[in-house]
Amino acid sequence: MKKKISISAREIAERFGGEISGNPDVTVSAPARIESGRAGTICFLANPKYEHYIYSCKADIILVNRDFQPREPVSATLIRVDDAYSAVAGLLAWFQQMQRSARGGNRFRARLLPDRHISCSARIGRGTRIYPMVHIGEGVKIGRDCILYPGVKIYPGCVIGDRCTLHANAVIGADGFGFAPDASGRYSKIPQTGNVVIGNDVEIGASATVDRSTMGSTIIHDGVKIDNLCMIAHNVEIGEHTVIAAQSGVAGSTKVGAHCVIAGQVGIAGHLVIADHTTIAAQSGITGDVREEGRTLFGSPAFDHREYLRAYAIFRSAARKKK
Amino acid sequence: MKKKISISAREIAERFGGEISGNPDVTVSAPARIESGRAGTICFLANPKYEHYIYSCKADIILVNRDFQPREPVSATLIRVDDAYSAVAGLLAWFQQMQRSARGGNRFRARLLPDRHISCSARIGRGTRIYPMVHIGEGVKIGRDCILYPGVKIYPGCVIGDRCTLHANAVIGADGFGFAPDASGRYSKIPQTGNVVIGNDVEIGASATVDRSTMGSTIIHDGVKIDNLCMIAHNVEIGEHTVIAAQSGVAGSTKVGAHCVIAGQVGIAGHLVIADHTTIAAQSGITGDVREEGRTLFGSPAFDHREYLRAYAIFRSAARKKK
Amino acid sequence: MKKKISISAREIAERFGGEISGNPDVTVSAPARIESGRAGTICFLANPKYEHYIYSCKADIILVNRDFQPREPVSATLIRVDDAYSAVAGLLAWFQQMQRSARGGNRFRARLLPDRHISCSARIGRGTRIYPMVHIGEGVKIGRDCILYPGVKIYPGCVIGDRCTLHANAVIGADGFGFAPDASGRYSKIPQTGNVVIGNDVEIGASATVDRSTMGSTIIHDGVKIDNLCMIAHNVEIGEHTVIAAQSGVAGSTKVGAHCVIAGQVGIAGHLVIADHTTIAAQSGITGDVREEGRTLFGSPAFDHREYLRAYAIFRSAARKKK
Repeated sequence: MKKKISISAREIAERFGGEISGNPDVTVSAPARIESGRAGTICFLANPKYEHYIYSCKADIILVNRDFQPREPVSATLIRVDDAYSAVAGLLAWFQQMQRSARGGNRFRARLLPDRHISCSARIGRGTRIYPMVHIGEGVKIGRDCILYPGVKIYPGCVIGDRCTLHANAVIGADGFGFAPDASGRYSKIPQTGNVVIGNDVEIGASATVDRSTMGSTIIHDGVKIDNLCMIAHNVEIGEHTVIAAQSGVAGSTKVGAHCVIAGQVGIAGHLVIADHTTIAAQSGITGDVREEGRTLFGSPAFDHREYLRAYAIFRSAARKKK
Repeated sequence: MKKKISISAREIAERFGGEISGNPDVTVSAPARIESGRAGTICFLANPKYEHYIYSCKADIILVNRDFQPREPVSATLIRVDDAYSAVAGLLAWFQQMQRSARGGNRFRARLLPDRHISCSARIGRGTRIYPMVHIGEGVKIGRDCILYPGVKIYPGCVIGDRCTLHANAVIGADGFGFAPDASGRYSKIPQTGNVVIGNDVEIGASATVDRSTMGSTIIHDGVKIDNLCMIAHNVEIGEHTVIAAQSGVAGSTKVGAHCVIAGQVGIAGHLVIADHTTIAAQSGITGDVREEGRTLFGSPAFDHREYLRAYAIFRSAARKKK
Repeated sequence: MKKKISISAREIAERFGGEISGNPDVTVSAPARIESGRAGTICFLANPKYEHYIYSCKADIILVNRDFQPREPVSATLIRVDDAYSAVAGLLAWFQQMQRSARGGNRFRARLLPDRHISCSARIGRGTRIYPMVHIGEGVKIGRDCILYPGVKIYPGCVIGDRCTLHANAVIGADGFGFAPDASGRYSKIPQTGNVVIGNDVEIGASATVDRSTMGSTIIHDGVKIDNLCMIAHNVEIGEHTVIAAQSGVAGSTKVGAHCVIAGQVGIAGHLVIADHTTIAAQSGITGDVREEGRTLFGSPAFDHREYLRAYAIFRSAARKKK
């Protein structure tokens, strides 16, 4: 049985040397990103670029820098600390520890067959076939009629829909690649407290990896098809019925639209928005938002596919002239 | 004991609402591509580009569109359906189901040691060493003196020669990435009924993936060396003694010649032919056939290596002039 | 108990038809690269480019071509053979065989739990957590407070420091990709007799691979963070506190400096030296040494980041003019 996590603004302020503006007795049960804070969550604001979110955020507590002065009313209780960004790593580690103890720590009991490792707190739907050497962590939920081929690994807390196929050695929910450098250039780990949520009718290729989010969920929507050796980073969202060919990667926090076609060995940088029905040619690198729907892109950095081919023809002919 | 699959033209025509021209009692036991149809197989023709193959095809049955009118005599029994391409997915699924039941369904009994999962219908040659946590599916054949390192996964029906080395977590025979979009942009899976056939003296790197073909075999010929994290897609053929460095990918149905040298992070598009003795520089992208032997290519899209370096030198110097 | 390997100059000369200059009774216990030969090791010199190393090399035996005439005194015993390069593969295979028999051959007994495969000759530090389906080979040493997630595979003889995290399906110590072509274009395997040495506080992503060296060690220094699906080839060295994002690859024998930031899908060619504090933009390809510290590079082949962006802007605008 999962215990409920609950921390009050007072406890948080004490732990991080913060100053409370608002109700010190309000409690929260999970961290969230400021653009998606709901009741019961705590968010943080460090980058001024995200300030506009604070005025509509539904979180109960928001951690801010000590000098932050709101320009409009904020509904949340604010906790002012010296460095909100640094405090977040500590806050996430605290939640992670509580999540683990709520899940029953690291106890792990094999269920079904001794050669499949399925946590006793996992829930598996009817008709789902699980091959040998699959590992399913604590609190994982898997829908009906899925196939998990040999060697699939699913980290704790991830959620998978109905009729999904996960090919051999796919890894769902490993930690996002989040590290904060200190002044000396050493990195300390930012706890990755979120999970991965996969919709219905999704196929994930052999040895592909989908990382868990820092807070909230990395989301793969219904009908998405991801080929072998792809990398979907933390906090990413892939829209419905998008296909991604082999060895492509989507970096952290990017939102890829629905019905996109992404060819092989494509790289999409982090924190971008890619419109629905975008087509990306093989080996392209996307470094900026794609706002308009239905475009076809090529190159690294990528731009209009036809324009790229023309530019490349000129590039190529230059060498011939010189010969 | 493997049961023989046998379906008659009459049964196929009934299932797909087809009209028979030829012998309705002829039977077939496997699907095949039209360019390689043999006696006992059924092929299909949907794309007019492939029409010339139908006149020399040795298959016993060929599925065609209702309006198809042969310009020369065809030896096979023809079955005319409304949409040959759509019928193929159904046909492949039907064969897949029969293959499974012929193999003894999904029953799976461990042989040898409890921590290796080897189907009781697999055949393993003398002197082959199998490390723990290897999975070997139904009907797999492995030759003599191979080494399968921990975590290797081999899907049902694949064939591996003598003296092969498969490094940890390599995946052989996962489904090819084949999906057919419907009018609403949703994808339905095209069953991947083929297998992977690997010759003698082949080495496959850690976490590399070689997908099974849709029909027939993905073929890795004798002496091929494939490095870590490479992706060999469905229906691909890699010629003898070709080496492929890490993280490279070959897309579906491409035939790479013998004695090629493919550097790291190369991408080769689908449905191409690459001549023998081709050298491809790292990170290049091949988008067209390479007909002439012995060329060295660079760039994405790739062209002659020296020409690329000259073009790139001009590209680079342009920025200096502007400074 | 590990037995000590010891081979005399006389035995080596007999096996390879060599001629000894120096002490025939001197013995060695391991092969080493000529740039790092220590007492008790045997090195080889085939490529004249490396000749200068021979005059300061501390190895006890050096294998050279029959026509080699030193221009300065050499402290080692020399063994002259017809083809030093060809003799090395045989020499390495010989050492590998002796290493295996010193480790107790291929005997492998499960320790701890039946679903984790830990060689009885492996040493694991206190506080280290090992998930199911992890394989740890003979003679592996792992420090304290590490986490090895499900499916991690560690080949024999590798060494891992304290507080390291290895994510699911990471593979440490698979054979480097080393093959010598013969006159007919067939490849024979160069035995990979070295290991992987990983420092403290290192994180290795899901399905990443770090190959063992041919001789000596592939080295990942303290504080390095490597993301999912990265490939670190044989003989590579990664300096302290360098971070490498997903799907990047470093080819054989390259030394990457400390505090570098390498973005996703980067490729670094082999035998290079990359200075400390180098930043490499996503999808770049590094083909030459980077001697100056603190540079930011982009492109394939990569050069100065800002210069690349200017050159690329000109490349792109050329297409617009032509429209």
